[in-house]
Amino acid sequence: NTASETKEETKLPKVASAPEVTNIIEPHKGLNQPPVPLKMERVGENEVNVEMTSQITDIEISKGNMYKAWTFNGEAPGPVVVVKEGDKINFTLKNMDPSIPHSMDFHAVHAAPSKDFIDVMPNESGTFTYPANKPGVFMYHCGTKPVLSHIANGMHGTIIVMPKDGYPNDGEIDREFVIVQNEWYKYNDLDDMTNGVPTNVVFSTKALKEGQLNTNGTASGLVDTPLIAKVGDRVRIYVNNVGPNEVSSFHVVGTIFDDVYIDGNPFNHMKGLQTVMLPASGGAVVEFTVTKEGNYPIVTHQFNHATKGAVAILKVTKD
Amino acid sequence: NTASETKEETKLPKVASAPEVTNIIEPHKGLNQPPVPLKMERVGENEVNVEMTSQITDIEISKGNMYKAWTFNGEAPGPVVVVKEGDKINFTLKNMDPSIPHSMDFHAVHAAPSKDFIDVMPNESGTFTYPANKPGVFMYHCGTKPVLSHIANGMHGTIIVMPKDGYPNDGEIDREFVIVQNEWYKYNDLDDMTNGVPTNVVFSTKALKEGQLNTNGTASGLVDTPLIAKVGDRVRIYVNNVGPNEVSSFHVVGTIFDDVYIDGNPFNHMKGLQTVMLPASGGAVVEFTVTKEGNYPIVTHQFNHATKGAVAILKVTKD
Amino acid sequence: NTASETKEETKLPKVASAPEVTNIIEPHKGLNQPPVPLKMERVGENEVNVEMTSQITDIEISKGNMYKAWTFNGEAPGPVVVVKEGDKINFTLKNMDPSIPHSMDFHAVHAAPSKDFIDVMPNESGTFTYPANKPGVFMYHCGTKPVLSHIANGMHGTIIVMPKDGYPNDGEIDREFVIVQNEWYKYNDLDDMTNGVPTNVVFSTKALKEGQLNTNGTASGLVDTPLIAKVGDRVRIYVNNVGPNEVSSFHVVGTIFDDVYIDGNPFNHMKGLQTVMLPASGGAVVEFTVTKEGNYPIVTHQFNHATKGAVAILKVTKD
Ligand SMILES: [Cu+2]
Ligand SMILES: [Cu+2]
Ligand SMILES: [Cu+2]
Ligand SMILES: [Cu+2]
Ligand SMILES: [Cu+2]
Ligand SMILES: [Cu+2]
Ligand code: NA
Ligand code: NA
Ligand code: NA
Ligand code: NA
Ligand code: NA
Ligand code: NA
Ligand SMILES: [Zn+2]
Ligand SMILES: [Zn+2]
Ligand SMILES: [Zn+2]
Ligand SMILES: [Zn+2]
Ligand SMILES: [Zn+2]
Ligand SMILES: [Zn+2]
Ligand SMILES: [Zn+2]
Ligand SMILES: [Zn+2]
Ligand SMILES: [Zn+2]
Repeated sequence: NTASETKEETKLPKVASAPEVTNIIEPHKGLNQPPVPLKMERVGENEVNVEMTSQITDIEISKGNMYKAWTFNGEAPGPVVVVKEGDKINFTLKNMDPSIPHSMDFHAVHAAPSKDFIDVMPNESGTFTYPANKPGVFMYHCGTKPVLSHIANGMHGTIIVMPKDGYPNDGEIDREFVIVQNEWYKYNDLDDMTNGVPTNVVFSTKALKEGQLNTNGTASGLVDTPLIAKVGDRVRIYVNNVGPNEVSSFHVVGTIFDDVYIDGNPFNHMKGLQTVMLPASGGAVVEFTVTKEGNYPIVTHQFNHATKGAVAILKVTKD
Repeated sequence: NTASETKEETKLPKVASAPEVTNIIEPHKGLNQPPVPLKMERVGENEVNVEMTSQITDIEISKGNMYKAWTFNGEAPGPVVVVKEGDKINFTLKNMDPSIPHSMDFHAVHAAPSKDFIDVMPNESGTFTYPANKPGVFMYHCGTKPVLSHIANGMHGTIIVMPKDGYPNDGEIDREFVIVQNEWYKYNDLDDMTNGVPTNVVFSTKALKEGQLNTNGTASGLVDTPLIAKVGDRVRIYVNNVGPNEVSSFHVVGTIFDDVYIDGNPFNHMKGLQTVMLPASGGAVVEFTVTKEGNYPIVTHQFNHATKGAVAILKVTKD
Repeated sequence: NTASETKEETKLPKVASAPEVTNIIEPHKGLNQPPVPLKMERVGENEVNVEMTSQITDIEISKGNMYKAWTFNGEAPGPVVVVKEGDKINFTLKNMDPSIPHSMDFHAVHAAPSKDFIDVMPNESGTFTYPANKPGVFMYHCGTKPVLSHIANGMHGTIIVMPKDGYPNDGEIDREFVIVQNEWYKYNDLDDMTNGVPTNVVFSTKALKEGQLNTNGTASGLVDTPLIAKVGDRVRIYVNNVGPNEVSSFHVVGTIFDDVYIDGNPFNHMKGLQTVMLPASGGAVVEFTVTKEGNYPIVTHQFNHATKGAVAILKVTKD
């Protein structure tokens, strides 16, 4: 009986195979810029300086499958940015890409896109200032044309704007995680990105504090290295589906979301959800309790996507 | 004029053709286990025993297209399970499959998946206990790897946890139905399940009381045998999209949902919806009034899916 | 550097190429019926007469790509219909198509579909009466079989039922627009409509008042001719995703929705959304403020669809 089961499982599509020929543009060949840490400095009660890079960095999407990603700060998704409701953001993009312009579109801010989200030329820097006056879990991404190529090649991430008055249950939260869902397509293949199905759909986690786990969007990263909680913990996840193309049906196996805030705004309160629907670019804050020790898989319940990598494990231990 | 209309309709894709060669695993060949009724017994004010089987049973998805389904209790989707908010569920899975382990993941309960949702070996039984302490319309499914194969081959269904204090309009409801949406793919073809589009998208209804209509997920079952209501009835549908892959845009032609409760939780109240968005695994309670006699089609308004079978008829008569 | 960028952009899939051979049915060949204006007349405090046509009219989906659309009133999407909550609608469909029956399914009304949404034969008229007693942004479409062909060939549009007591912020709105999202497939190819991916996904705007911009669903119409607003304006969009198959992740770059009403019902209030999830046929009212001059792209953030045309520009000027 076990034999037939094993045979069946070997039919799993090989999602990890590296393409023989890739579409790497000439100036990116051989380029692998080491990740540059996000720079963030609070310069006033309601003002922060944020400096990020656009750069070309190899990401191992799955075992042996290297993707020469277009990234923010050498991560894909990029590092999480956390500010407070009411902050003015002074943002600098340092474009380390030798050949392609890049830009930054923060969904968290009010800005004139044609001025504040404009292209920064190769080897140049651009500085922009805008307010983040709505709380929530927002996507950011490169907005340079063709936008789909820039997002799908890795230029996406999450900015959290913490609500001025917090979330209703802030005092009861034992653990907080950020989880980002993104898709990967054939390397820099705009036709596949436009008309195909994703090669991989993946999760990553991003560190809210120094020393916390911080990963790229890979097919098994959060299965090989699980997130950790303790029995009885109330867990909060800031979740964001950065696409570029697919919606997400975000679900944690073995529990039910006690409280959900759509796009992370405290006003958009739902209770007792098994699964939260995330549009492309959509976010949420979800809170739940883990009552017994064991492993709790986290998935998009669009199971073709879970099969392609969108699974994380939350490991719950007794002490 | 009628001639050209007829010609046009013959172009409908043949979704009913049975595949010549199938992927039936050796121990399932020739196996067709008769449906075993769900066993359910209330053993205390807040405690129920539920016993289900996993078994291999032929389902006629569309005229002449037999699918040797992996099922719960010989139905696909499985039988609806109804408990009350606050119930402890003592659940037994009797695995009648001679060759493959199966398991049960109830979205309605708090449990440690790695212990409480574990595999039950062929020809064995497993018993698990967990609380159902949130009201709603939840998916259940087999969680054995590869999960997508187990769900897509038929191992899914709906568990309703009735809210302790009921729904706001319980006193005004004249008819209640359960409708489940699921997809079918090429037989046991994990590559098609992962990268293809569904061969059929279908609805089924499940009996809430003995003697009510109870069907499998088939391409025209609920068109050939409609649901029935009377003029002036306020109708409630417990709807659940069990996927495995697609989201649903659930809609009833000719009316508007007066009240919708997302995932069936009374807190998540919306009004006046034409269509309710269901993520993969998502549920809802929808209530509406039928004001005139006639046939009201029920569809997912993702019309490629309706074209593939996701249509039911609600027949409204005068007396 | 600019050279490589340019080279990259030439890889954009050619979505505009006209098919060499089309599937035009015989009686439609050479037929191009000029648009007939929607007739609408208020005949009582709570009663309106609405007269529409079904007709065959060429629509230029993208530069040089003519689609012999099946339309309401020669537009695809059809003209926006605006009534008031509580109105009785006396609706006449004048079927100018010489060969195919058509019909009208308004999501805004209570009706018996098998009587009130029935086929009107070629060169005939049908009159139907039904109430519009729920406020919101609703889809309408032809419901003649095969429904997917009729919708995908262009027979869809939006009916707005204005709430009796208005929306909470009616007094603060400076600009109002209607935006409709729809998909185009290979010409009249039901297999492509059922199993393929859209050739184009597009936006259109519909005039709420005489003299306002009113467009068909084309790949670059609202980029070539932007919507217009002024700095500081609070803008409202009545948005409707008429599909037929895809969901939408509706987003305005550079701003955040202050207030969202799902399906346009004032009860379904959300705040601070970056993106609103629209099921197939779903609608919403979204309100936001534009704080600086410049161009604000409007997209579905399912970026494969934006790449296929679902982009509009909101041009914000100082005075
Ligand atoms: Cu970029
Ligand atoms: Cu599940
Ligand atoms: Cu199973
Ligand atoms: Cu409809
Ligand atoms: Cu029609
Ligand atoms: Cu964006
Ligand atoms: Na791909
Ligand atoms: Na769960
Ligand atoms: Na298929
Ligand atoms: Na309807
Ligand atoms: Na197509
Ligand atoms: Na935005
Ligand atoms: Zn570029
Ligand atoms: Zn609340
Ligand atoms: Zn819980
Ligand atoms: Zn298995
Ligand atoms: Zn309520
Ligand atoms: Zn009603
Ligand atoms: Zn027809
Ligand atoms: Zn409100
Ligand atoms: Zn704003």
